[in-house]
Amino acid sequence: MNAMPELHFWYDFASTYSYPAAMRVEDAARAADVTVTWRPFLLGPGFASQGWTDSPFNLYPAKGRYMWRDLTRICTDEGLPFCRPAVFPQNSLLAARIALVGTDEGWVAPFSRAVFRENFVHGRSISDTKVLRAALNDLGLDPAPVMDRATSPENKERLRAQVEDAQWRGIFGAPSFVADGELFWGFDRMRRAIAWAAGDRL
Amino acid sequence: MNAMPELHFWYDFASTYSYPAAMRVEDAARAADVTVTWRPFLLGPGFASQGWTDSPFNLYPAKGRYMWRDLTRICTDEGLPFCRPAVFPQNSLLAARIALVGTDEGWVAPFSRAVFRENFVHGRSISDTKVLRAALNDLGLDPAPVMDRATSPENKERLRAQVEDAQWRGIFGAPSFVADGELFWGFDRMRRAIAWAAGDRL
Repeated sequence: MNAMPELHFWYDFASTYSYPAAMRVEDAARAADVTVTWRPFLLGPGFASQGWTDSPFNLYPAKGRYMWRDLTRICTDEGLPFCRPAVFPQNSLLAARIALVGTDEGWVAPFSRAVFRENFVHGRSISDTKVLRAALNDLGLDPAPVMDRATSPENKERLRAQVEDAQWRGIFGAPSFVADGELFWGFDRMRRAIAWAAGDRL
Repeated sequence: MNAMPELHFWYDFASTYSYPAAMRVEDAARAADVTVTWRPFLLGPGFASQGWTDSPFNLYPAKGRYMWRDLTRICTDEGLPFCRPAVFPQNSLLAARIALVGTDEGWVAPFSRAVFRENFVHGRSISDTKVLRAALNDLGLDPAPVMDRATSPENKERLRAQVEDAQWRGIFGAPSFVADGELFWGFDRMRRAIAWAAGDRL
């Protein structure tokens, strides 16, 4: 029997507001005695099904300009380093496949935080295998077998299923949080979602 | 010399998240010694320029389903009554024209709250002149001269200029808040915007 309530954290490594969420969700949840289940997925397929071929932050420039400024404020308020990357959005496919392996092997959280830092602090390419191998190495892992497992047909199919599961749950953006079937969208809803998981319902 | 810092509150009577903002902005600002300048405008022209002919909450059903649930939670958390209206979005043109008159005559805030309640509590048509006249009447105003002034060519032009001013300021959604040139979007940013106006900068 699982004694602690659970929060499902859905995120995409390309997603800007997923960065502060990834950096803060574990600490905030722990303070409320809530466990976090990390659910890496991809926003792209959902966007494509709405007819978008790019991030809405690029398609709608006023919204994009605002987002970068808003994210800067959030990171300052949260005490997080932030540097707007030259390339946005980045291709997050391989990083998501690796993270999915990490959900089995217990290192998904630190790996995910490392990838978000590469994207939104150091501005490195998170589709570059060298960057991802280095992140695995920094966690004390042997990158080769992890990369093999990440790019196996089984794991590719598993990520596809994860993306379909997100859409089935009505998830249309990232970060999203699901607590006992209740959906919350956006970093600004993270703490409300944790409170919901802890029992603070309507 | 203006001793109190100022927050500009941009809203559309058709906008769902503008409802809790309109109900809470004065009290929250007063607690921080910030004055509120009410800036009614219309989202429609900005949406149309992006190729949208309907609310994005109708165009993107997953986002729309989420929004209604999220708004219900927010209203519960804020202690505000809420009833999802049968028609969404409503035509907010005449209500915005009247509100603009109210910005000169000192009754824009209670009039605006009354219109939001008609939309999001009582589900009445806020483009119905009977509903709007009754709201003015409830404020102790004579509706006839207000309606005349609201529908005058000068006032229509003034609302057009207000919409252009919003776009010039990079406003792309509602509610939006501007504090000393800094833009904040969404009810979830209202209290941060007030703190910014009061001097809590980056």
